[in-house]
Amino acid sequence: MPHTEANLQRNPLREGLEIRSMPTPCTLVIFGATGDLTRRKLVPALYNLSVDGVLPSAISVVGVARREMSDETFRSGLHESATKFSRQPVRDSEWADFSSAICYHRAAFDDAQAFHSLARKLAELDVTRGTRGNRLFYLAVAPDQFGIILDNLRASGLTSGVNGGWARVIVEKPFGSDLASARRLNTLVEEAFAEADTYRIDHYLGKETAQNIMVLRFANALFESMWNAQHIEHVQITASEPLGVEGRAGYYDKAGALRDMVQNHLLQLLCLTAMEPPVGLDADSIRDEKVKVLRSLRPIVGDDVFRHVVRAQYAAGSIDGRCVAAYRREDKIPPTSETETFVALEAHIDNWRWAGVPFFVRVGKRLPKAATEIAIHFKSVPHVLFKAAGETVDDNVLVIRIQPDEGISLRMSAKMPGTSLRIEPVKMDFRYGTSFGKATPEAYERLLIDAMSGDATLFARRDEVEEAWKFVDSIHAAWESRSDDLAFYPAGSWGPDAADELARRSDVTWRRL
Amino acid sequence: MPHTEANLQRNPLREGLEIRSMPTPCTLVIFGATGDLTRRKLVPALYNLSVDGVLPSAISVVGVARREMSDETFRSGLHESATKFSRQPVRDSEWADFSSAICYHRAAFDDAQAFHSLARKLAELDVTRGTRGNRLFYLAVAPDQFGIILDNLRASGLTSGVNGGWARVIVEKPFGSDLASARRLNTLVEEAFAEADTYRIDHYLGKETAQNIMVLRFANALFESMWNAQHIEHVQITASEPLGVEGRAGYYDKAGALRDMVQNHLLQLLCLTAMEPPVGLDADSIRDEKVKVLRSLRPIVGDDVFRHVVRAQYAAGSIDGRCVAAYRREDKIPPTSETETFVALEAHIDNWRWAGVPFFVRVGKRLPKAATEIAIHFKSVPHVLFKAAGETVDDNVLVIRIQPDEGISLRMSAKMPGTSLRIEPVKMDFRYGTSFGKATPEAYERLLIDAMSGDATLFARRDEVEEAWKFVDSIHAAWESRSDDLAFYPAGSWGPDAADELARRSDVTWRRL
Repeated sequence: MPHTEANLQRNPLREGLEIRSMPTPCTLVIFGATGDLTRRKLVPALYNLSVDGVLPSAISVVGVARREMSDETFRSGLHESATKFSRQPVRDSEWADFSSAICYHRAAFDDAQAFHSLARKLAELDVTRGTRGNRLFYLAVAPDQFGIILDNLRASGLTSGVNGGWARVIVEKPFGSDLASARRLNTLVEEAFAEADTYRIDHYLGKETAQNIMVLRFANALFESMWNAQHIEHVQITASEPLGVEGRAGYYDKAGALRDMVQNHLLQLLCLTAMEPPVGLDADSIRDEKVKVLRSLRPIVGDDVFRHVVRAQYAAGSIDGRCVAAYRREDKIPPTSETETFVALEAHIDNWRWAGVPFFVRVGKRLPKAATEIAIHFKSVPHVLFKAAGETVDDNVLVIRIQPDEGISLRMSAKMPGTSLRIEPVKMDFRYGTSFGKATPEAYERLLIDAMSGDATLFARRDEVEEAWKFVDSIHAAWESRSDDLAFYPAGSWGPDAADELARRSDVTWRRL
Repeated sequence: MPHTEANLQRNPLREGLEIRSMPTPCTLVIFGATGDLTRRKLVPALYNLSVDGVLPSAISVVGVARREMSDETFRSGLHESATKFSRQPVRDSEWADFSSAICYHRAAFDDAQAFHSLARKLAELDVTRGTRGNRLFYLAVAPDQFGIILDNLRASGLTSGVNGGWARVIVEKPFGSDLASARRLNTLVEEAFAEADTYRIDHYLGKETAQNIMVLRFANALFESMWNAQHIEHVQITASEPLGVEGRAGYYDKAGALRDMVQNHLLQLLCLTAMEPPVGLDADSIRDEKVKVLRSLRPIVGDDVFRHVVRAQYAAGSIDGRCVAAYRREDKIPPTSETETFVALEAHIDNWRWAGVPFFVRVGKRLPKAATEIAIHFKSVPHVLFKAAGETVDDNVLVIRIQPDEGISLRMSAKMPGTSLRIEPVKMDFRYGTSFGKATPEAYERLLIDAMSGDATLFARRDEVEEAWKFVDSIHAAWESRSDDLAFYPAGSWGPDAADELARRSDVTWRRL
């Protein structure tokens, strides 16, 4: 697993992986080591990074959970997960290399003794594995367990690095369920770790294209010169999925689409789309600009919520020819639930750049297609020239596809071949996959490496999280005042009529993806 | 051949061929009917138009030449040409349909009697073919024969339509060899036909992408908003071909690349690229704007010619691994010839839109590749952000490919997939062929239909031709004053060092195509 000359040479991905700041030797401690996230995301990501030769030159991984288990049993469970979820095939020799760095530590999270013995184990690993006193704690657990874990980490002296090393914590979403709970959580974390050592995960930010938005905007004069209210008519940000509530009923029915998706993912995409050029590429310069966008978001409060935000829940319908049940009939969902599975809203950013440009945001479950994208609709050309020839001209649209099939396309108008003048919309297209011919790393790969390197750019800062909750909370407050605005849409449709109506008031039609 | 419901239905191209003004019934009279142009271009184009069902509902084609020949012999020669040069397979039934409209008329161009009998034949055809007194005369002959043909047409009363019909003339290039001869030629034509009835061919204008430049610019807000000195760094227009002088030695050695290519094709492309939006899409509105560009071209005179224009001639070399002779060793080229086969120049357009933006134009024979393109180089982004991260960012370049593989591509910068920040140039691409999945009509198809429809947009107007000669003449005058500036380049290279030097003085590198 260490990053050696040998694996540098055999690794075809290597040339794309010139790390800005190299990840330093460290021990990664995962709380919730037997949980879903560890199995499906963290271990496959670590294995891929190991095969690609980009992990730190010295590393160890310690899984912590309540269950009694040997290192061997733990490893063999992870082997199964990696085989199932890794984007690369799991080969014996590579797995042996990788898994030798992994061990298991049993601890109930409220067992102070177990944390003291964890501290001793980490000190030993520093010696045997050369991890230099650097520790990265990953809280892959439910938020209600953050407090006790953080308390015990502090009590056992683990919240600061030893021997000049560092200590950092990665906190998984959801980060609170409203502004008040987020603040409580933040305060809790802050008592244990400095803000600079706190890495709040938003895995959307780890996605390649989300990162590429910044490059696209600030490395291309053609786009950045047009990136303002003078040239842009409106923006549409969509995250749609055909999945229903699946196994997350308990959490989801309490959260709903607004808190589950808009507060974090969609507002993050909106920030990346709308922010001013940062002073530098360091984490705080970028996050400063993102916070400015959030603070410029015009609050939607009181009756305005019912004009500018649509909430809806899926009714029975069909997806890909398969009949699916209504949300209220899903397992563990109360039959009278008023939780929204779809949100459409019109946001405005009150600053110079975006005055008068509506940002339409929509997210939903049980929509026809899995797709996340940002679509920049440019203003119309004056229609004088081609209208006279009886031709209509579609506006230019720049689409940044986050998933699937990450890439960028530009809808433009071209003359259709032929002896007459016919103008048709065509697409210039760029796909990451086909253009670079190499695999895009998983979001968690990028985020783990960044945390090991001390680069917090793609993690949410405290003030970001809290500003986003502020925006979302006032919408929620209005919703709690009444319930007759909850619309229903058949599963497999693109949402309720009310969402179309919302867009139509600004002469906008939602894109059909 | 007539355009009937039946052939509308079986024609897959048809839907793209909604003619703005329908071509009216007419007789096309081709002078030079046994020549190369008729064989290689005109007849294949007419056949394709016939198969596509877009010729006028009533048409006849009369070939005129000196040789004694029956209609049948003439047709069977054309059948051979169509089979060889048409983009569509020649099928018996379709050929029978098409060729029934063709006949031959023998005439020495100085034989006044033969023109009178031509007039009688055309009158008969009006009755038998329903061509309504409309006549389109195509001068597919050398310019020194224009005078006598035009005189005889006038003398036999053919220069005006009969029975309310129209009479138009299509004049092939080269249209003069300098301003004085172009004016003489124009005056000659003008004595026979009104300017509005004179169609000067520049087959580059008939190419799909040349036409598409206007749609690209004026139907896409994204481009037109950036189309000026504020955003554009420079423009490169290139027409390169691997061919040598081939069978045109006599003409070419007198003309040279400047007169053969720059005066017409390249200046036309420059005009389409640089012109202001026209008031309308009619021929004169567009040509008014093109003339304005030509009149704004900063004249290159005297010593400036040696600073801003490079001329060169190919020496021996190799193309595609095949050794080829020097220009001076080519058949029928004088061994001391100083004719240029390559020109590179830096032009400036002195108006508000283009102040300070150099237009680099180059054209050459025996270059490595056949390609014609316009490349718009946008200004750099401020390098503050990514330079700090050690990354260089290439400028955006919009390339309009005229041939081969007509299309548009945009070079932009994207983040290379991987856990680090690496910026790479990538291309968004649009190809007419693959996007529309249909054949692009040949330039001559478009031009013939336009002339039959009375649409002169894609033909050069008298003042255009003369302004272009003015620009070219002052360069030629300086060249005649000395000869030591003639450079040589090996066949198969991209031209002489002096051309690179010319560009380098503006910090520009010629694109490698």
